[in-house]
Amino acid sequence: MSRAFNFSAGPAALPEPVLRQVREEMLEWKSERASVMEVSHRGQAFIDCAAEAERDLRELMAIPDEYAVLFLQGGATTLAALLPMNLAGPDASADYVLTGHWGEKALENAKPLLHANIAASSKEGGYTSLPDRNDWQLTPGAAYVHYTPNETIHGVEFHDIPDVGDVPLVADVSSNILSRPMDVRRFGVLYGGAQKNLGPSGLVIVIVRKDLLGRHGRNLPPIFELQNQAKNDSMFNTPATLSWYIAGLVFKWLKANGGAVAMEAQNREKANLLYGSIDGSGGFYRNEVRPDCRSWMNVPFFLPDAALDKPFLKEAEAAGLLGLKGHRALGGMRASIYNAMPVAGVNALVDFMGDFARRNG
Amino acid sequence: MSRAFNFSAGPAALPEPVLRQVREEMLEWKSERASVMEVSHRGQAFIDCAAEAERDLRELMAIPDEYAVLFLQGGATTLAALLPMNLAGPDASADYVLTGHWGEKALENAKPLLHANIAASSKEGGYTSLPDRNDWQLTPGAAYVHYTPNETIHGVEFHDIPDVGDVPLVADVSSNILSRPMDVRRFGVLYGGAQKNLGPSGLVIVIVRKDLLGRHGRNLPPIFELQNQAKNDSMFNTPATLSWYIAGLVFKWLKANGGAVAMEAQNREKANLLYGSIDGSGGFYRNEVRPDCRSWMNVPFFLPDAALDKPFLKEAEAAGLLGLKGHRALGGMRASIYNAMPVAGVNALVDFMGDFARRNG
Repeated sequence: MSRAFNFSAGPAALPEPVLRQVREEMLEWKSERASVMEVSHRGQAFIDCAAEAERDLRELMAIPDEYAVLFLQGGATTLAALLPMNLAGPDASADYVLTGHWGEKALENAKPLLHANIAASSKEGGYTSLPDRNDWQLTPGAAYVHYTPNETIHGVEFHDIPDVGDVPLVADVSSNILSRPMDVRRFGVLYGGAQKNLGPSGLVIVIVRKDLLGRHGRNLPPIFELQNQAKNDSMFNTPATLSWYIAGLVFKWLKANGGAVAMEAQNREKANLLYGSIDGSGGFYRNEVRPDCRSWMNVPFFLPDAALDKPFLKEAEAAGLLGLKGHRALGGMRASIYNAMPVAGVNALVDFMGDFARRNG
Repeated sequence: MSRAFNFSAGPAALPEPVLRQVREEMLEWKSERASVMEVSHRGQAFIDCAAEAERDLRELMAIPDEYAVLFLQGGATTLAALLPMNLAGPDASADYVLTGHWGEKALENAKPLLHANIAASSKEGGYTSLPDRNDWQLTPGAAYVHYTPNETIHGVEFHDIPDVGDVPLVADVSSNILSRPMDVRRFGVLYGGAQKNLGPSGLVIVIVRKDLLGRHGRNLPPIFELQNQAKNDSMFNTPATLSWYIAGLVFKWLKANGGAVAMEAQNREKANLLYGSIDGSGGFYRNEVRPDCRSWMNVPFFLPDAALDKPFLKEAEAAGLLGLKGHRALGGMRASIYNAMPVAGVNALVDFMGDFARRNG
């Protein structure tokens, strides 16, 4: 056995050097004579580790000081409920732009908490495109506009940040955080589960403009009050220390590999390779997303006959290409090509796809 | 450098064989050709791993079928808010028995969600005892009674399960789960963060009688609805897979080492050793908890002069005894002696304490 190219949508492949370091330090971390997961989050060693991870993330994303960076638990879905509670009162309105499954899920979690409107949706077309910005029906006075820059299941991505004026833009960046530079100042909140581009599942990062917190007027349980986490360096309760530490190692890896600018170049190259292979397959492979909003991170594609899916997956696995089964909502295939997927992995996939098409076309 | 005896209150020491296995499998888990944290939670390998962990926990605790076992995120503090939301409506009453810091915190998180009453409290005595069961002021018709069987900071433990009649008993067992057999049928809900007796922080286990869920009548965000997690094997959203896997290894270790019965014997022995050493120190060391409710898990103790705290901690660390600094709320020392702390560790501590007392008494 040896490690293979893992195209899983999340939890997803992590950089191998990160895993090696985690392995190396598993029983004894730094000079602690204990594993990183055995030491107190209140001890200096872990406080330093946590602060360094935050500093590195701030540097990688050029996060301004007026934003808090939180390392929390519960995944993006929990934040999809916590954010409406923290950003506005129950009588406020918020706008949701739906471009796939995760936008829908965020909306469902907001609905019980405030007046959540669908400002735009591309559902009618099966989420294969983005609703034209000119057609968005934004609510005057809305507390925020929520959207999902990259939809993991449908493979649709915004390649520009939509302009919503002064209304805070809230973005679920679970699947494209750090995949390219993002102008944080354009957002009120960026939040994302770690398990795609950042680390293990069970950690969620929230980057929030500090002035947006604590103005909701609700009587919340203290643990739901993000302000409490912001004021306590995300240690209002015991954080997910092991996951935080691993994310910190991923940040170091990103810094050593050129950061978001280098990731953008590599992700663009990988996407071009894979979409090129699909489009150049003479119709054998098919991606249904409008070309201008195809995702760089998640590439769903279909074979000419669903009967070929099983042999495709089986042979791919034998060729060391894992996790290609599409989401059950769409069927077909999906290749997730996050930061940790090297160009060599996409080349191997493209070679296999070409070969499979020749043998089955 | 080498591993030392770690008396940290949580995150806390884990069994070394568990850490060795995590290290061993870090880059390639089973036949997955990927790390356990890189594979999909929807893939068969992880589903099997998760189900096996649940089976082992059910076996270790003899959990009846009418209870759901959930592997969630957010720590016990998040559950302290989610449970009131899930167990009762906003007009309901619930009783809280306070025997230390964590009971207080649970109460604070419940207050905004329903009528949370203090049914009993030992705060006046500095949480050094338990309120006599005959003095509890239980509210007729309360949705549940919440208590904390072991208080990590104050070192106070219930050695029996209080009788509250037919009202569901809700217990935060973060710091004593699996430290001894517990009759699950006596409880409506048992919940606890993993970072003391079960695994890394970032995982919280909930054992809940199924009929108690889904009757609250609230319009909750779906992610806050525990019923959704119960119906989806804790995969309503992406779970903390790495932490779940590690907890599963701890369950295997517990099974291989005699389970809760053997842990009880060993924990009793360790507690006797340590309290014996404190009580036998001629007043040099002092534990202020009433002997009948002293915790087997967390032993706070004080030196005759706070000026000795620093030298004690420094010399202890040099002797390979870590994490002994008391919680800032109490000062002094605290030795946490969870399941993973061997008798040898407590013996080493007792020897050191005796030596330190002789040199400084």
